Amino acid sequence: RTYSIAVIPGDGIGPEVIDGALKVLTVAQRTFGFSLELTGYEAGAQHYLRTGELWNEQLAGQLRSHDAILFGAMGDPAVEPGILERGFILAMRQAFEQAVNLRPVKLYPGVDTPIAGLTPERCDLVIVRENTEGAYVGQGSTIHANTPNTVAIQESVNTRQGITRVVEYAFKLAASRRKKLTLCHKKNILVEAGKLWQEVVDQVGARYPQVQLDYVHVDAMCFHLPVSPERFDVVVTDNLFGDIITDLGAVIQGGLGVAASANLNLDGSAPSMFEAIHGSAPDIAGKGWANPVGAILSAAMLLAHLGEEQAALAIEAAAVGVLQKLPALAGPDMTMSTGQIADAVAELVTTN
Amino acid sequence: RTYSIAVIPGDGIGPEVIDGALKVLTVAQRTFGFSLELTGYEAGAQHYLRTGELWNEQLAGQLRSHDAILFGAMGDPAVEPGILERGFILAMRQAFEQAVNLRPVKLYPGVDTPIAGLTPERCDLVIVRENTEGAYVGQGSTIHANTPNTVAIQESVNTRQGITRVVEYAFKLAASRRKKLTLCHKKNILVEAGKLWQEVVDQVGARYPQVQLDYVHVDAMCFHLPVSPERFDVVVTDNLFGDIITDLGAVIQGGLGVAASANLNLDGSAPSMFEAIHGSAPDIAGKGWANPVGAILSAAMLLAHLGEEQAALAIEAAAVGVLQKLPALAGPDMTMSTGQIADAVAELVTTN
Ligand SMILES: CC(C)[C@H](C(=O)O)[C@@H](O)C(=O)O
Ligand SMILES: CC(C)[C@H](C(=O)O)[C@@H](O)C(=O)O
Repeated sequence: RTYSIAVIPGDGIGPEVIDGALKVLTVAQRTFGFSLELTGYEAGAQHYLRTGELWNEQLAGQLRSHDAILFGAMGDPAVEPGILERGFILAMRQAFEQAVNLRPVKLYPGVDTPIAGLTPERCDLVIVRENTEGAYVGQGSTIHANTPNTVAIQESVNTRQGITRVVEYAFKLAASRRKKLTLCHKKNILVEAGKLWQEVVDQVGARYPQVQLDYVHVDAMCFHLPVSPERFDVVVTDNLFGDIITDLGAVIQGGLGVAASANLNLDGSAPSMFEAIHGSAPDIAGKGWANPVGAILSAAMLLAHLGEEQAALAIEAAAVGVLQKLPALAGPDMTMSTGQIADAVAELVTTN
Repeated sequence: RTYSIAVIPGDGIGPEVIDGALKVLTVAQRTFGFSLELTGYEAGAQHYLRTGELWNEQLAGQLRSHDAILFGAMGDPAVEPGILERGFILAMRQAFEQAVNLRPVKLYPGVDTPIAGLTPERCDLVIVRENTEGAYVGQGSTIHANTPNTVAIQESVNTRQGITRVVEYAFKLAASRRKKLTLCHKKNILVEAGKLWQEVVDQVGARYPQVQLDYVHVDAMCFHLPVSPERFDVVVTDNLFGDIITDLGAVIQGGLGVAASANLNLDGSAPSMFEAIHGSAPDIAGKGWANPVGAILSAAMLLAHLGEEQAALAIEAAAVGVLQKLPALAGPDMTMSTGQIADAVAELVTTN
């Protein structure tokens, strides 16, 4: 089998970690007998500053022809915050109907977590974040601007259809795992949105009697997730709450250096996109201090999505093997550079 | 001086922890030479189930005559989630213009935090949460209900006036502390609301050149707060984000058992309200397992608000003294009951 992959390294440490992921993918294709056709695309802060281009029809058309997209990171102090996030990342998630943002929260053996006494056995959950609507639709208005009476209204728009596809996905996932699904919302306060979410979860849940259903307010989630992650198997939540709790998830699994994610198009109408959870970290770009494992695990999720389950598992196992030998996951205390870590993972993929 | 205090014990462990707080207040008034006139009010789940009464004009009128309100907790599995929260707690915060929800995040010596290696020196910040608007206004609508095309819209309403009073308060507080203020929002996505928040912070900040200004996205806050709390002094944020990050704050300071809060009316038009951050915990009610320190520290915040700074500090010091001797902060492993902890704090207030 041959897969066509679009590669968008982006800014800052994006190109470094993508280099690392590509090393591993290259080795994996030989070992597992598939082949990848890689096409690089320029995009991000530097590209925007030079050309003024963000997400656009032409690029969308080109990307659409690929089987999947591997994405690095975007952002640069020279570009006003929000421009690239909204103008590129959210634009892609919406244009390509990447309905589910899938974020595993898994503490790997040997990885240093800031949570005292937390063990890998107790920390293995997946957060399923709605990825195209909610507060991320960018709806709102400001009236009486520049007066003492300014009112800024920000809207969260939630559709039954948008929620349903994510919730269906979450139940299917839970049924294939420990059979527990937790809805995370704030339905006691956000009554309209919360009611629709709970309604959809109850309706879809009726078809999954084997999956145990739970509900946790988003504030309580921040309280329980760090100290009792074993309480959770699959957590389904809206776009904004998902953004928030997945960063907390990254903390407990040992930092952004190891956290991976998938932005999944569920109906095959456009490619899915895979990215590490970390940002472009311009302060450490070019130093070899970035941990490529988040990008490598995202590449493994890409392979799993394409049906190359065995290769995906081998990459995950290899990454775990290397993580166990790393005293520090990122920054100046790292004993291996970005490239060396990627080489070590690639090496383990072939020898395992 | 004599102060008139309304006491609302509420449900579950509310009455137990309020008993504890009252023991300490009673001793403090003798030691520090002021006197408290306490008036108890029935409210909460049990009261609602019996009478159908929630917040109402008559109760509001009675409470208004007091100098401050000491509040226990509300909630019971027999009452649908949201009824008491919206019908009583939020109703009070809004009716009494309790504009600021003040939540110190302080790790006391000897308290067990789940964050590995965290020390008290590194964890002493205050979260200033807007308490009357944002997503908590309850605005929203659902169209095409019960069809495949249901759309639920939830609004966050932010006014310049509402934001300004909170931001002013936060700057004043920062100026009296380590002189650092962090705005926590998600302005790259929630553009309308985020713009107004940043605008107000910049405008008010111009009058506080001695206060260093920072901005952190709410997702990044969840990433930094647990591992680098020393980065923060005063954090100002909106109602929903404040709800979320203060629970995370409670985690790092060692659990809900010790977290205190004030709901401050800033213009003297109505009384302020003081409550522990924990809920009614019906599962452990009546067992003597509840930690009264959150309620005791909230009572200390009440005294500080009334101008009894010295008594407030003495109570905090006494609570710290007792916390240092407690191996477990709540639950069946506690070596002291709710009442014994309160007695020990009261004892230390007089002897210190
Ligand atoms: C970059 C930004 C738009 C994005 C988000 O808010 O979704 C990021 O924080 C994430 O979680 O993927
Ligand atoms: C009880 C509930 C309404 C409340 C809130 O959401 O504000 C609580 O979570 C809090 O943080 O005080």
